[in-house]
Amino acid sequence: MNSKITSSQRALEIILDQTKKFDIEKVDFTNSLGRTLKEDIVADRDFPPFDRVSMDGIALVSNTFNKGRRAFKIEGVQAAGSKQLSLNNSENCMEAMTGAVLPKNTDVVIQYELLDIKNGIVNVNTEDIKDFQNIHKKGLDRKEGDILITKDTIISSAEIGVLATVGKSQVTVAKQPKVMIISTGNELVEVDQMPKDYQIRRSNVYTLISLLKRLNINAVSSHILDDKENLKTKIKSYLKEYDVLLFSGAVSKGKFDFIPEVLDELGVDKLFHRVSQRPGKPFWFGKKQNKTIFAFPGNPVSTFVSCMKYFYPWFQKSTGVDFANNKFAVLAEDFTFKPDLTYFLQVKIENRKGTVYATPVKGKGSGDLANLIDADAFLELTADRNEFKEGEVFPYFNYRSS
Amino acid sequence: MNSKITSSQRALEIILDQTKKFDIEKVDFTNSLGRTLKEDIVADRDFPPFDRVSMDGIALVSNTFNKGRRAFKIEGVQAAGSKQLSLNNSENCMEAMTGAVLPKNTDVVIQYELLDIKNGIVNVNTEDIKDFQNIHKKGLDRKEGDILITKDTIISSAEIGVLATVGKSQVTVAKQPKVMIISTGNELVEVDQMPKDYQIRRSNVYTLISLLKRLNINAVSSHILDDKENLKTKIKSYLKEYDVLLFSGAVSKGKFDFIPEVLDELGVDKLFHRVSQRPGKPFWFGKKQNKTIFAFPGNPVSTFVSCMKYFYPWFQKSTGVDFANNKFAVLAEDFTFKPDLTYFLQVKIENRKGTVYATPVKGKGSGDLANLIDADAFLELTADRNEFKEGEVFPYFNYRSS
Repeated sequence: MNSKITSSQRALEIILDQTKKFDIEKVDFTNSLGRTLKEDIVADRDFPPFDRVSMDGIALVSNTFNKGRRAFKIEGVQAAGSKQLSLNNSENCMEAMTGAVLPKNTDVVIQYELLDIKNGIVNVNTEDIKDFQNIHKKGLDRKEGDILITKDTIISSAEIGVLATVGKSQVTVAKQPKVMIISTGNELVEVDQMPKDYQIRRSNVYTLISLLKRLNINAVSSHILDDKENLKTKIKSYLKEYDVLLFSGAVSKGKFDFIPEVLDELGVDKLFHRVSQRPGKPFWFGKKQNKTIFAFPGNPVSTFVSCMKYFYPWFQKSTGVDFANNKFAVLAEDFTFKPDLTYFLQVKIENRKGTVYATPVKGKGSGDLANLIDADAFLELTADRNEFKEGEVFPYFNYRSS
Repeated sequence: MNSKITSSQRALEIILDQTKKFDIEKVDFTNSLGRTLKEDIVADRDFPPFDRVSMDGIALVSNTFNKGRRAFKIEGVQAAGSKQLSLNNSENCMEAMTGAVLPKNTDVVIQYELLDIKNGIVNVNTEDIKDFQNIHKKGLDRKEGDILITKDTIISSAEIGVLATVGKSQVTVAKQPKVMIISTGNELVEVDQMPKDYQIRRSNVYTLISLLKRLNINAVSSHILDDKENLKTKIKSYLKEYDVLLFSGAVSKGKFDFIPEVLDELGVDKLFHRVSQRPGKPFWFGKKQNKTIFAFPGNPVSTFVSCMKYFYPWFQKSTGVDFANNKFAVLAEDFTFKPDLTYFLQVKIENRKGTVYATPVKGKGSGDLANLIDADAFLELTADRNEFKEGEVFPYFNYRSS
């Protein structure tokens, strides 16, 4: 019964060995924010696609200007979105607008700020022009065929703009896994119900749903009472229908903690049970063929931190993103934690002059969800010692978006 | 024509003077992630609501244990979610599960790890017990009536869990503004169309829609051709229907840059036009009664950075959040920028041992959207000097979620 305990680091390694290669799907590019791109995005034409006027003003022939002419008759207006016009007389000019094609036979644009215009004649108040001044040359930014965005990029607003520009109205992204979040425990009632004296409301599944929403996963949830046969029937069907099961509760040593037993009977391979961490020690992890099962302890804070520490990287790596937690913070005051466990300390995060500081938030116990309101993140303190000094650096998991 | 130019700092002050007090609305708490809470959330009962067993084991009477007894007959099992049982004989014990109510007449729980159980008799392998060991006392975390979450908090997964716990299935949040995003420019075609030689695809509105999606705003968009009367008719109707108009383009000095003129004719007060910044100099901002108008320049990078620098704080403050950009990064290498303008430098962001470094990404011009793919953020360099040294600290605007 007293199964071997796994270190937090080893637990993560085991989980990252079990990542999947998610399927791909096409989505409308306007729905692709936050998704992982699964194709290279290529320039369909040069960027800019033509010699583009980049300031409003007049287009003229530099050679004429360099010979000394400063007054130019306006032949016409080259508007953005109009076909390219031609300057007929090299002694004249053409008004040209930002975004327009540079008129044929011209090679320089002088901005309105340097001009006086009267009765169709422009007087230029400058003696200096540069080659191709105010012209964004065709292909200067990118050439047709250049790769603009590589596969496995997480799509931000920057990528959305580029997808639009190259006409990728449909884009190939990693398909999201189908995730079922399951709570157990006869003490739980629904959020809109009034609990009896010995009951509490379901909260962990909603925390998990919202944590997965940050990854753009729309998870569903279910509650199963602590009845072994019932659990077995339901979990069996969920294992068929979903890619990932996330449990909250019933993995500890209680008489009604049936999850490990039921999963075993259903042929799920246990990869570890119990991790040397606080909170979240009874964490159970396993797989069955291409299904992955994270069974988190029922303590609300355990569930919360375990999802960020273990499910997030499993998901990211499965979409093809080379995941590493790359957020580190400086401990702002000394802290002592005696047990030989990895400790996820609740902290306030503050950026002071470019350095990220983590200040411990005094809690009232690992199960106190309300305490998380005063914090921003979990700071991961290593298991190998008891004393953590102000100024030392540790990884952190931020659950606030800012 | 050469209107006075406004500093970036002053522009932000003017905008923050024009923030609104958004209406409130009730939403299902499962849809409240990222929204701003507009009510205090109060504990509807004590947390925990009863003396809660926090480890699986046996509940017994400490006095009996302290008198020397180490073997206890099991009277029954107190399960989580069951009514409180009573221990009848103070020499016996009751099995008690995590999450259960502490059985009546008991005051301590000893975990299974310290027990041997045979034929209904428990032998306890410890000499030490603490008062109320493994019992999470009623009201220890929070008392009924305590404020758990204060108004004006942005709802994260931590708040979702607390809302569920106290039964707030419906929650009052700041109502999102109705936002219309308008592109102009005859050179623009839709994303799924093939542009002619002198055309490009619409991209700025999609960038803006995605930037607003990060704030949980579902904006709509429209395209208007560069025809003054048409612009006037459409903008007039949008001013009635929407709270905020965001324009991209037609605010510069071009012959078809009708926006400032049309807005003026429609009775919109100009609060500034032109900001001493790069990119984004022609930025125009105004208001009409309770409507707010941000008219960004058409250059894709201008639109992008101006939305984050100006619209984001306007929105946050309007929801009631005391907004301050509190992200700062250390410039990782020397950088020179000569013009007397605030410069939004495109940078890669990296957290090295708790300090955030910003490394400039070499660009090919302010309009090069593809360049943003290689960067993560804009670093805001002050207008008052030309030389920026490695190690100096500046605010930044990150458009990647990580």
